[in-house]
Amino acid sequence: MRVLILGGDGYLGWPTALRFSAGGHEVAVVDNFSRRRWHEEHGTASLTPIRDLDERIDAWYEVSGEHLRRYVGSIEDGDFLDGVIEEVRPEAVVHYGEQPSAPFSMMSRERAVETQRTNVLGTLNLLWSMRDHVPDCHLVKLGTMGEYGTPNIDIEEGFIEIEHKGRRDTLPFPKLPGSLYHCSKVHDSTNIHFACRIWGLRATDLNQGVVYGIDTEETARDERLITRFDYDEVFGTVLNRFCLQTVVGHPLTVYGQGGQTRGFLNIRDTIQCVELAVENPAESGEYRVFNQFTEQFSVGELAELVRGAGEHLGYEVEVRSYENPRVELESHYYNAVHTKLLDLGLKPTLLGEELVESMIHTIERYKGHAIEGAIDPRTRWSPGEPVGT
Amino acid sequence: MRVLILGGDGYLGWPTALRFSAGGHEVAVVDNFSRRRWHEEHGTASLTPIRDLDERIDAWYEVSGEHLRRYVGSIEDGDFLDGVIEEVRPEAVVHYGEQPSAPFSMMSRERAVETQRTNVLGTLNLLWSMRDHVPDCHLVKLGTMGEYGTPNIDIEEGFIEIEHKGRRDTLPFPKLPGSLYHCSKVHDSTNIHFACRIWGLRATDLNQGVVYGIDTEETARDERLITRFDYDEVFGTVLNRFCLQTVVGHPLTVYGQGGQTRGFLNIRDTIQCVELAVENPAESGEYRVFNQFTEQFSVGELAELVRGAGEHLGYEVEVRSYENPRVELESHYYNAVHTKLLDLGLKPTLLGEELVESMIHTIERYKGHAIEGAIDPRTRWSPGEPVGT
Repeated sequence: MRVLILGGDGYLGWPTALRFSAGGHEVAVVDNFSRRRWHEEHGTASLTPIRDLDERIDAWYEVSGEHLRRYVGSIEDGDFLDGVIEEVRPEAVVHYGEQPSAPFSMMSRERAVETQRTNVLGTLNLLWSMRDHVPDCHLVKLGTMGEYGTPNIDIEEGFIEIEHKGRRDTLPFPKLPGSLYHCSKVHDSTNIHFACRIWGLRATDLNQGVVYGIDTEETARDERLITRFDYDEVFGTVLNRFCLQTVVGHPLTVYGQGGQTRGFLNIRDTIQCVELAVENPAESGEYRVFNQFTEQFSVGELAELVRGAGEHLGYEVEVRSYENPRVELESHYYNAVHTKLLDLGLKPTLLGEELVESMIHTIERYKGHAIEGAIDPRTRWSPGEPVGT
Repeated sequence: MRVLILGGDGYLGWPTALRFSAGGHEVAVVDNFSRRRWHEEHGTASLTPIRDLDERIDAWYEVSGEHLRRYVGSIEDGDFLDGVIEEVRPEAVVHYGEQPSAPFSMMSRERAVETQRTNVLGTLNLLWSMRDHVPDCHLVKLGTMGEYGTPNIDIEEGFIEIEHKGRRDTLPFPKLPGSLYHCSKVHDSTNIHFACRIWGLRATDLNQGVVYGIDTEETARDERLITRFDYDEVFGTVLNRFCLQTVVGHPLTVYGQGGQTRGFLNIRDTIQCVELAVENPAESGEYRVFNQFTEQFSVGELAELVRGAGEHLGYEVEVRSYENPRVELESHYYNAVHTKLLDLGLKPTLLGEELVESMIHTIERYKGHAIEGAIDPRTRWSPGEPVGT
């Protein structure tokens, strides 16, 4: 199958490209290196020593004998994207090509606008390109569980049947996004749903939980294939951050009470879910939503898990409550349905002390690269000075 | 009160500016003349001979003795908008500054992207500006009933109480927008709701029905004060189009079966509703939604109404079914709640033959300006050649 990966230089995009390539698919990747650029602008970096895209692609060829095509450019540039789509003629597009950080989107007006421009207009360009050139292609789009927020009812997979004043309809699940980044993902969902309803495109929206982990089967084959690992307050996700904090002797940064509950999954399961979605495409005209996570945890529970694993390895681990820079409920009801990917055959990699210990071991190899000043929370959701100043 | 009108040169923005000025408020308007530019690009124009903004403002001063401040620029330019907000320090912002046409947004990738960029990023700039400079200011934003689409349940005003698996929450009403323009309005709603929840801004989202009519109390005071009247397939609304079609002897352009049912209101009621919203502001942190229309009609019913009025005035009127260029249900359940504005004191101007006849009389004065080639539907929702080619 011809598979196009947007954001193919990223944390998840790169391992996804390798997996499809290893599976015998014809893979092309698009990236504009914005994630690398944003890190440079913030004075932060991946903990793992990631190679340039060309170098990685060469290494993969050495290791596997498989070619990856690559296109460098921005999907906000509709003509560039049209050119790629016409040349690759993908049967599936896996779309990671977005600004993925909530704090980034809350830093300033400029960063907020950049986030929504990149994400919403980039995806809109993609929908038009697919409509005009490959209307039968299957879009697999990375959304986020954060689109739903924390409503006081169970979260369903994208749609909910509502009975109201004696009538009944199945409608998009109401959304309460918690940052302007999350808002951009809600906008994407609305646009993609529209494109399926009106143009007959087919799409799977993967509302992903918080991802943790470093290695996948393919990236582990050669150090040059390693994917990025972010631990800074802007791009790092919570469990990855806690593991790094343990290794460098930083208190675990629990925001507020730590009762914030979310869905989580291992990076290996992200790759598995995307594969399952591509292998079992949506119908023409169908917009389907899968809640892509394997387990729910509160932030406090994760901190305790990491403390246990860290202490078992001989680290002294302090769990500390930080002033919460976000505006969010720190204690709330949370129960999200996530059966559709299991029905397709997902075999979850469950989180336990052993897995955390193995992450800690990988991090130990690169701990010399850690920039401690990038760890503490700073970006406030409310107006005012950065936290801690 | 200091009132800032975004899009103050437009069909509704201009009469709104005059109303607030007549009411003794300090009024400033912002416009980048994009509506005039788009008409030039399409070879279309307002039927009514609208004056340049400066000329209109001078005429209003002559007639009323009141000054209107004006700022020419785009709200997509965040620095420009910041400057205006800092200078005016508005207590209320009435936001019409958007691309308002569904067909425009469906013409091409470029027009779709332009629509979402203008609307979503412009409004996002505004929210940041308000947050940083006038956090207590009341945003009165024009949304559209088209955000809801045509669900099979009654449409509530912005929110719906959902009981689900034994739990209960009041959540944003699910949306099924029918064009990429309507999608942009849904995106705006999500962003504004976010800004109220997280930053404590106050906003009223006026989900407006389809507006008809030409004159308001203030614009009727001098011909130089007349507002624009669009009848072309891109910017014209259905009842205005039917009245013009009657006068120029064009068949009434009913799309498909004509069973499409929507909420409608007179331009005088738009002004009245906006006034009511401004006079009764939302609470700090409150995002409230008013469904702003006075009556529901199907397109077929409107055509029959106009035929009746036209024939009464001696016109021969043909109601013709055109191939529907849109993708929409032509027969569906529709019942939308609209009590909040009535509760604030809205006195509806109801539609009847007399009102249609008076619109027809006004149109007769300017019928020499009508461009017949701009009337037939052309812009398709689906890929392919324009309708009728």
